Amino acid sequence: MNYPSGIKKINRSTIPITTDTYKNRGMNLEDELNQSNKFYRDIDKAFIYKKPTPIKITKVDYPSRDRAVIKEAFFTIPSTTDYNGIYKGYYIDFEAKESKSTTSFALSNIHPHQIKHLENIEKHKGISFLIIRFTSLNETYLLPTKNFLVFLKESERKSIPLDFIKKNAYLIKDGYNPRIDYLKIVDKLIEDFGGTR
Amino acid sequence: MNYPSGIKKINRSTIPITTDTYKNRGMNLEDELNQSNKFYRDIDKAFIYKKPTPIKITKVDYPSRDRAVIKEAFFTIPSTTDYNGIYKGYYIDFEAKESKSTTSFALSNIHPHQIKHLENIEKHKGISFLIIRFTSLNETYLLPTKNFLVFLKESERKSIPLDFIKKNAYLIKDGYNPRIDYLKIVDKLIEDFGGTR
Repeated sequence: MNYPSGIKKINRSTIPITTDTYKNRGMNLEDELNQSNKFYRDIDKAFIYKKPTPIKITKVDYPSRDRAVIKEAFFTIPSTTDYNGIYKGYYIDFEAKESKSTTSFALSNIHPHQIKHLENIEKHKGISFLIIRFTSLNETYLLPTKNFLVFLKESERKSIPLDFIKKNAYLIKDGYNPRIDYLKIVDKLIEDFGGTR
Repeated sequence: MNYPSGIKKINRSTIPITTDTYKNRGMNLEDELNQSNKFYRDIDKAFIYKKPTPIKITKVDYPSRDRAVIKEAFFTIPSTTDYNGIYKGYYIDFEAKESKSTTSFALSNIHPHQIKHLENIEKHKGISFLIIRFTSLNETYLLPTKNFLVFLKESERKSIPLDFIKKNAYLIKDGYNPRIDYLKIVDKLIEDFGGTR
């Protein structure tokens, strides 16, 4: 469950962003993906957004007629993945997760209905994948859903060994702008579909 | 601004849903679209979801280690539209609004950046549109972005006359399940793209 980190992120966003390189190095995966997606939008390349955090609102105050303040709400389990959008006419959908492990990625990071969702997207001719960052190794991978499903089918393990990821996922090189140029990898996946629409 | 209605809807969702036909008649557009999208998912036809309501969280309590309660949050202006997903390999994106008017649809219902978003989707070969319900007339229309943009370009008016909508949008017939079978209209839009992917 990534709710505590979700909250942390929201609190962080109130801290003014500086252009200091050292500070940028301290960005987490979500911040970097948001920055990258904004870059893609700015250059009119792709329109991919992070969905708002799903919450259940249970109490709302109206201090004035046109103003509402949520006074009680709870984080709920997302039915889908965090990111989706459009690129070259393709529906793009992915989940992004960080792992502190240096040897494997625990499947408990992904909800079963998120796996089912990725599978549905794949089946309906979208492009879906996981972005996994091993924070201790400073390595970020794009694992296509197709390869992820092969692992789930063939293995009983509760985590994906780094070795499998190295063989079946694409390493995404760090950049400056965009920080995570994952669309370069998506271009390769699009080639499998027969090119630009 | 549709925040008050957004809040109402969330409160409503705590009321148990019955299968009573009269109750169903009282469903609002959002409820009916959610039901229709669930139906499409259940029959493996399309995977289209409403995005969570965007909020800015400013205060969170932790009554226990693994439990977080949001104690203060505010509704924020959405950057995109409310609904998106995949159908027949196409990226689908739309906004849905109710109007009490019997003569026109006020453009103030749609944020300028939502219009820009619909335009971007269209340009990048997605299928985007507005679903507009005239509640007093009990008529629901699907207005393709292309036609919506023609109106914006050619008119200085601050609302779209019903007459323009009747000529340039598709009337969606009421149904039982799905309540709003808007994919029937999307099929027509897909034909313009050259058919199923």
